[in-house]
Amino acid sequence: MNVQVTGAGSFGLSLARVLARRGHDVRLCCRQEDGPEELRRTRHSPHFVQDMELPQEVEVSLESDPDVEMVVLAVPSHVMRTVLEQNPFSGKTIHVSVAKGIENETLYRMSEVIHDVAGDVPVASISGPSHAEEVAKDLPTTVTAASVEEDVRLAVQEAFMSPMFRVYTSPDHIGVELGGSLKNVIALAAGICDGFELGDSAKAAVITRGLAEISRLGTAMGADPLTFAGLSGMGDLIATCESRHSRNRAVGEKLARGSTLEEILGASLMVAEGVRTARAVHALSEQYKIEMPISDEVYKILFEGAEPVRAINALMMREAKPERL
Amino acid sequence: MNVQVTGAGSFGLSLARVLARRGHDVRLCCRQEDGPEELRRTRHSPHFVQDMELPQEVEVSLESDPDVEMVVLAVPSHVMRTVLEQNPFSGKTIHVSVAKGIENETLYRMSEVIHDVAGDVPVASISGPSHAEEVAKDLPTTVTAASVEEDVRLAVQEAFMSPMFRVYTSPDHIGVELGGSLKNVIALAAGICDGFELGDSAKAAVITRGLAEISRLGTAMGADPLTFAGLSGMGDLIATCESRHSRNRAVGEKLARGSTLEEILGASLMVAEGVRTARAVHALSEQYKIEMPISDEVYKILFEGAEPVRAINALMMREAKPERL
Repeated sequence: MNVQVTGAGSFGLSLARVLARRGHDVRLCCRQEDGPEELRRTRHSPHFVQDMELPQEVEVSLESDPDVEMVVLAVPSHVMRTVLEQNPFSGKTIHVSVAKGIENETLYRMSEVIHDVAGDVPVASISGPSHAEEVAKDLPTTVTAASVEEDVRLAVQEAFMSPMFRVYTSPDHIGVELGGSLKNVIALAAGICDGFELGDSAKAAVITRGLAEISRLGTAMGADPLTFAGLSGMGDLIATCESRHSRNRAVGEKLARGSTLEEILGASLMVAEGVRTARAVHALSEQYKIEMPISDEVYKILFEGAEPVRAINALMMREAKPERL
Repeated sequence: MNVQVTGAGSFGLSLARVLARRGHDVRLCCRQEDGPEELRRTRHSPHFVQDMELPQEVEVSLESDPDVEMVVLAVPSHVMRTVLEQNPFSGKTIHVSVAKGIENETLYRMSEVIHDVAGDVPVASISGPSHAEEVAKDLPTTVTAASVEEDVRLAVQEAFMSPMFRVYTSPDHIGVELGGSLKNVIALAAGICDGFELGDSAKAAVITRGLAEISRLGTAMGADPLTFAGLSGMGDLIATCESRHSRNRAVGEKLARGSTLEEILGASLMVAEGVRTARAVHALSEQYKIEMPISDEVYKILFEGAEPVRAINALMMREAKPERL
């Protein structure tokens, strides 16, 4: 199969390698600032993935090929629209989003952004517990390929399925996309727990209650509630909240230790999607009238100057009551 | 309230402190081998909880008081029956089990063992993400008090509820007990992932699929499936699988690194409930005809001499299919 990966960040690089080893013709489409000459010459991009060699067969290019059979869109969610507008694909090209976020201006999921720009093209998303650094090392990884069209999700599964990169399928595109996006806000809260050294029990409670609120909002938005109990919901949430690889978790930890958001974001090349997603979740929870106490505290810390320690207390001191899911 | 904690292991000690600080009259009933004289004198039991001082008000005793209003049974599950037979309580005493296991010979949950020995007494269980070492340090902890009788679960909630020990209630006693017990088998699998350094993504997938199989069995046994998405299910599972405090996780890690079960259990004073529970889960999954691939691999490693590395491969190499929850 003729596949293009658009975006040479950590996930784009590691997925290009998975696809090349699977035997596809792979083009990695990057920007000038990603250093294509060096990537072509050294086959390494140490800023994004340490110790991964990009297979020789992957063509590194600045040009997008509009006629590929499949494009894997590995770009931050806030540039998805622009990237597609500047580099459109054929109506038959399967568009696979691996971005985890929600467009802030429209509150669209990534598949909605793709349809908005490209019309009625085949669209899927891949999501699930999958740190790029681990995929690059051939550590066992399981993800879910979601699309409302069965042939599309099966084609994506077939394209990626490898011994160490296992792909399940799901028809619940809404649920899979929301799980992957909303978890980054909970990861910020989990990082705050780490920063205050609150312990594993408290963090597990935040993750659990976090999934409950993700699931409430997602169900109101049309997702199947069971999806959130799966790899793309609970699985990705745990991997993100418990890993040193998670940028969103790390942002929360630094916030708890006293850094400002500007200091943290200014010091990193990579994007912490959770910061933007916190805004979108705040708007969505108001629109759908869903109580989301953890996401709400994260929003107040990020954008309303609330003290992290006060937020933790607010969460712990809620009144005695039955557990509600 | 007049409360006895039976069992001076790590959880018994830390709960005795929670109850004493809450203002109850607390007796800690221990065995001669727990060193009651030293505990009385130093108020410390460093083998079980480092750096925790047992409040002076807690009476340390070798004698059980049959007339207490509430007894907290903090003993390993395989001795619950004997302990109760030797030290019965009044018919009005609220029996609170904090043991996490299933009696191997009968496949009874702890509340069933209590009823079997003591008849129609009030029974509750406390379960949830709550490492004794963290409770002892006043780190924020949330648990669920379960009982089919509303007044009993409310009494237990009221008895324990403290600023850093938050108690929710649940009427689903079956689900809360099963979540707390079955997760120890999955924690062994998570520890095996750690021992092989499979990464955070793989481990998150094992935890997620592990909860799915716990939930399938639990639902077949009469639990409310939603309970497994709560603190006593998912929450406790995550805390156990992700913490250095977890003995069951540590056993799995050592198995993966080449130790035998006999070596591991021989070197520890504490009980790893998951080993016995793996036997019970194996029998229950056959009885209820529920597929439990992860628990099954753990059973084969523990009792049938299977190689951990083969088990991991067996789990990863399952055929491509839709995600089923």
